[in-house]
Amino acid sequence: MLNSPPALENLVQELSKLPSIGRKTARRLAFHLLSGDREKMESLADALTQAKDKIVHCSRCYGFSESEICQICENPRRDEGILCVVERASDILPFENSGIHKGLYFVLGGVLSPLDGIKPESLHIPELIKRIEQENTRELILALGSSPEAESTALYIDRVLANSQVRRTRLARGIPVGSELEFIDDITMLRAFEERVKI
Amino acid sequence: MLNSPPALENLVQELSKLPSIGRKTARRLAFHLLSGDREKMESLADALTQAKDKIVHCSRCYGFSESEICQICENPRRDEGILCVVERASDILPFENSGIHKGLYFVLGGVLSPLDGIKPESLHIPELIKRIEQENTRELILALGSSPEAESTALYIDRVLANSQVRRTRLARGIPVGSELEFIDDITMLRAFEERVKI
Repeated sequence: MLNSPPALENLVQELSKLPSIGRKTARRLAFHLLSGDREKMESLADALTQAKDKIVHCSRCYGFSESEICQICENPRRDEGILCVVERASDILPFENSGIHKGLYFVLGGVLSPLDGIKPESLHIPELIKRIEQENTRELILALGSSPEAESTALYIDRVLANSQVRRTRLARGIPVGSELEFIDDITMLRAFEERVKI
Repeated sequence: MLNSPPALENLVQELSKLPSIGRKTARRLAFHLLSGDREKMESLADALTQAKDKIVHCSRCYGFSESEICQICENPRRDEGILCVVERASDILPFENSGIHKGLYFVLGGVLSPLDGIKPESLHIPELIKRIEQENTRELILALGSSPEAESTALYIDRVLANSQVRRTRLARGIPVGSELEFIDDITMLRAFEERVKI
């Protein structure tokens, strides 16, 4: 904008780099921040710097942590025998929120995509295989989403472990609880029908 | 979230204070920032601190500025005789973007709202009246929006200046350019009809 203070334009620029924040929203956020209590801007800036400096990847599961080993991996009450493999660190959240998984996690860091040059070594797949060989893993839950890439990644890991004793499972697919049938997409309906269970 | 690093939770907390950013979006933004190039977090933190420290209110028009007097007020090519009165500093933007207004601005800082205790002295109305008395203002464009409070604020300023020579105007109301008539709300249609002009 013509005649706008450079520090304001720079803030708008930086905010608009965030996902789903366009230039107009960024401008609205900047004006909101400048019009209110300015200390809020300081707290947000501090939170960003702190998060940047403190948060590392857990060296065991590759999730986010403030220490070498994250709180989940460190917890002696979690069942080491059940390993839930997810694509991204953020995928741990829904499991922890539901409280259903008592085992540990392993973040792959993505899914296989040969066309984009993402091979097993580009992800943490070698580390996963090594960990399973060394530890007493009884069950591997491959919780990798339903894109073709995610499905072939799960298949790849399943095949590599074909001769191992580890039980490989994946999450059930079906109708989400509370959904109206008329709003279910075709693929979900297909899967829910195929994987129907006896009452 | 249980077991989530405190620095991550703090960042989510700070981001969710932004308008239209809920807790889920804040978490998505935080994960995005942590997963990508960490330098981005530093630039955003810097932009926030810089904006907080550098941006002040222009002492003449109360818009945002990095100096005592903003670039618009300082520009000798702007027509000092035409003063466009707006509610918030962000309202200057659409005028500057269109490039139609060659005069100056004056930010009221809000609109009158007796029920909320917002009286003329709570806004910059006394400064506006003083400025008009002292300067050669020919026209005052009251660009204050169409809420009942905004309309009564414009009326109030108009009455205070009843005995002055300053021409008071407001923006035309009507159908936005490019709009389909069927999507126009009732009040806009009423105004557009009332203020119809001869072709």
